[in-house]
Amino acid sequence: MTESKTDILIIGGGPAGMMTGITAAQFSPHKKVLVLRPETDAVIPCGIPYIFGTLGGTEEDLAGRAPLLAAGGQIQIGKVASIDRAAHTATLENGDLIHWERLVLATGAENFIPPIPGTQLEGVFSIHKDYDYLDQLFNTLIPKIKKLAIIGGGFIGVEFADEIRKRGIEVHIVEMLPHLMQAAFDLDACTAVEKQLQSHGVHIHTGCKVEALLAGDGQRVAQVQIAGQSSLAVDAVLIAIGTRPQVDLAKAMGLTLSRSGGIWVDAFQRSREDPHIFAVGDCAHKQDFFTRKASHAMIASQAAAEGRIAGMNLYGLRQLRTNAGSVSVYASEIDGLAFGVAGLTQHQAEQEGFPILIGEAQLPDHHPASMPGTTDILCRVIFAADSLQILGGQVLGGATTGELVNTIGLAIQMHATAPDLVSMQFGSQPRLTPSLHPLVAATGNALQKHYVLLHPCVEDSQ
Amino acid sequence: MTESKTDILIIGGGPAGMMTGITAAQFSPHKKVLVLRPETDAVIPCGIPYIFGTLGGTEEDLAGRAPLLAAGGQIQIGKVASIDRAAHTATLENGDLIHWERLVLATGAENFIPPIPGTQLEGVFSIHKDYDYLDQLFNTLIPKIKKLAIIGGGFIGVEFADEIRKRGIEVHIVEMLPHLMQAAFDLDACTAVEKQLQSHGVHIHTGCKVEALLAGDGQRVAQVQIAGQSSLAVDAVLIAIGTRPQVDLAKAMGLTLSRSGGIWVDAFQRSREDPHIFAVGDCAHKQDFFTRKASHAMIASQAAAEGRIAGMNLYGLRQLRTNAGSVSVYASEIDGLAFGVAGLTQHQAEQEGFPILIGEAQLPDHHPASMPGTTDILCRVIFAADSLQILGGQVLGGATTGELVNTIGLAIQMHATAPDLVSMQFGSQPRLTPSLHPLVAATGNALQKHYVLLHPCVEDSQ
Repeated sequence: MTESKTDILIIGGGPAGMMTGITAAQFSPHKKVLVLRPETDAVIPCGIPYIFGTLGGTEEDLAGRAPLLAAGGQIQIGKVASIDRAAHTATLENGDLIHWERLVLATGAENFIPPIPGTQLEGVFSIHKDYDYLDQLFNTLIPKIKKLAIIGGGFIGVEFADEIRKRGIEVHIVEMLPHLMQAAFDLDACTAVEKQLQSHGVHIHTGCKVEALLAGDGQRVAQVQIAGQSSLAVDAVLIAIGTRPQVDLAKAMGLTLSRSGGIWVDAFQRSREDPHIFAVGDCAHKQDFFTRKASHAMIASQAAAEGRIAGMNLYGLRQLRTNAGSVSVYASEIDGLAFGVAGLTQHQAEQEGFPILIGEAQLPDHHPASMPGTTDILCRVIFAADSLQILGGQVLGGATTGELVNTIGLAIQMHATAPDLVSMQFGSQPRLTPSLHPLVAATGNALQKHYVLLHPCVEDSQ
Repeated sequence: MTESKTDILIIGGGPAGMMTGITAAQFSPHKKVLVLRPETDAVIPCGIPYIFGTLGGTEEDLAGRAPLLAAGGQIQIGKVASIDRAAHTATLENGDLIHWERLVLATGAENFIPPIPGTQLEGVFSIHKDYDYLDQLFNTLIPKIKKLAIIGGGFIGVEFADEIRKRGIEVHIVEMLPHLMQAAFDLDACTAVEKQLQSHGVHIHTGCKVEALLAGDGQRVAQVQIAGQSSLAVDAVLIAIGTRPQVDLAKAMGLTLSRSGGIWVDAFQRSREDPHIFAVGDCAHKQDFFTRKASHAMIASQAAAEGRIAGMNLYGLRQLRTNAGSVSVYASEIDGLAFGVAGLTQHQAEQEGFPILIGEAQLPDHHPASMPGTTDILCRVIFAADSLQILGGQVLGGATTGELVNTIGLAIQMHATAPDLVSMQFGSQPRLTPSLHPLVAATGNALQKHYVLLHPCVEDSQ
């Protein structure tokens, strides 16, 4: 047992923890920053599906320590057994004691395993953000699989399906909702993704509720039992239906949890009980940007944003939170078909009670469209019909889709309105961009409907 | 001679005129919209350099009439001889008379030809946005050229140089300033562009003032005489040093011009003399977003934005201008090296008197960087040091550079501050985007300098 002292102790080495550490080391250069994590090596979370196809190995998805070390922070491998809040100490499982001035919990999330029979069988797995676990999966389990069922048709399920089918494995996605990706996108994007996956040989079973996983001879999974259907014969099952905040340590410390299940935090990521104790990332409470309801979005970039806010505010409140909560901004791609979303979908906006105004535009992503490598972009934008504030947007397109939804995300966070966006100035270049920005084009379409419906005959009053 | 009547007459069929026409037809569906232009066929302005290389022909850069016709507008080929403001009529050169209710001038710009000897020689040309002219250039002049001098190292000169060298022509760029692209970019981007062009065999002569163009035998250009240097032997010269508003018709109509040389317009693109007469695009006055000084930026996307504003406001003010003026947003690419800029450069900001705060970040455009097709992005952001409002940004990178500078452009137009941008939420996906948004990373670098310099010991006051 050893005893040591740090100024800032960060528990967890995922995107939230690492970004807190980097930011803290940069903004408090005289303080000692230590990130403590159980994994010897960390992986980049959103790169995990690509380990099994495009990248071809776990070592290609390593999250480097270099940025943290370069900023002046340190890493220690270890697991915390308990925290003494009054004494400002952490005791590790090996008995080591660490004194701290500021504590940041970045303990992440754990996979949600549904309460159905058979999830403990051999061959049933979920994705853990742990290098050694994933490496074993890659080298031991995956090479034996011939027929895989993925339970859950969200981002992880869809990306994993398209990567693993490249290894010649027969892949089935089983989704309870009527469409894949339905929690994140409106119907046209969902069906485009389904079509793309099917064209690659992925089998899709939507509207299907899994009742049980059944073993064959011995303890290995052999069947997925679907309500009202014949069973699906498989030799492995990936469960990818979501995650929950990992808050065991926070509970043991007596920290207040929020209605989302995450650790209660204020606008600066501080816990309710102690302004010297912070929480960031998947383990911390989030609320929706528009409604302030509990939000269950868990994305690395948001975790990193919270890490930056905490890292700057550990010793004095320097960085005010300039937005009201979480905005979902996601994108992905399946072999050339990119799809992205920012903010609310039409379905979500209508469910919340917003009267909405929708604009759509379809246009080539280069101009003239005869430029090499031109792909079509479909952009849909959703505004609050009364204030004309932007609520969300979706993009189906090519290589620029990720940055396009990031632009829509910024527009949402800056409270842009349709009049702001329809006269937005932008660059337009044949090799790089469309002649008309998709966000401007779709906004113009929305305003056309709005004005022409609202004042059909304004042009007669000259 | 015929006499006809339209409701909305738009003079000029470039991006400003066409966008006005499309918007007017959409927002005033009961009105007759007519675009009158001299060119039988129009080209896409920023596609022009690519006619001579990538596209391989003028017909590949046609600007279609379809969007205007689909919206319900019409096109007529013809040239206006005079306007009678009191009678609300236009007389064409062929004697035809057109009655109008609303008139929109979209007469564009003309090339600036410097007052040096020899610009009238055979083989000396500039770029006109006219299909027939460009087609003749492509089919008649260009095939005869072996050695071309381009006078002017801005966007047109640089893009044209890289395209025309693909035809095996020896290309020399002659620029008066110490670097190419210097009016638009800070030094690192300028030198990156120079290096890329040189690696493709383009000869660069910077800090060189052209004194005269000299003929050989007969009337054909043979030499470019550069101050203090030996002459450069060529067989053709492209003059690409800028454009000026084409305001002959506006002058003849007695409309007020602005200090920029463009037609005076209010926030709704209306002329000073008559609220029924509008001007849009390169022929209309522009002012800078930050300083409200006269701005000489002439870009198609800005022209189109003005067309949208005018098109919505012809019969009642429906679309308020939500920004103070022009924000430059440009991007281009030379064989894989993309470069873009939004807002002020460091040099421009300093010249205006802003105390500035600069942030920089260099990062791969995909993560993990082992993903196929990964390119580095270099992002530099400039803030006003006191208000922390974003003034500008530059990007050197790959395929997403165009959309990245569009995001920076939106941030400028929405008056985003460094605290807004450092905690911006964004999507991050291995196939599409970096792990950290370049704008967020560069902003973090700026704030680190700002806070650590401003309050070096805030962390000691716990």
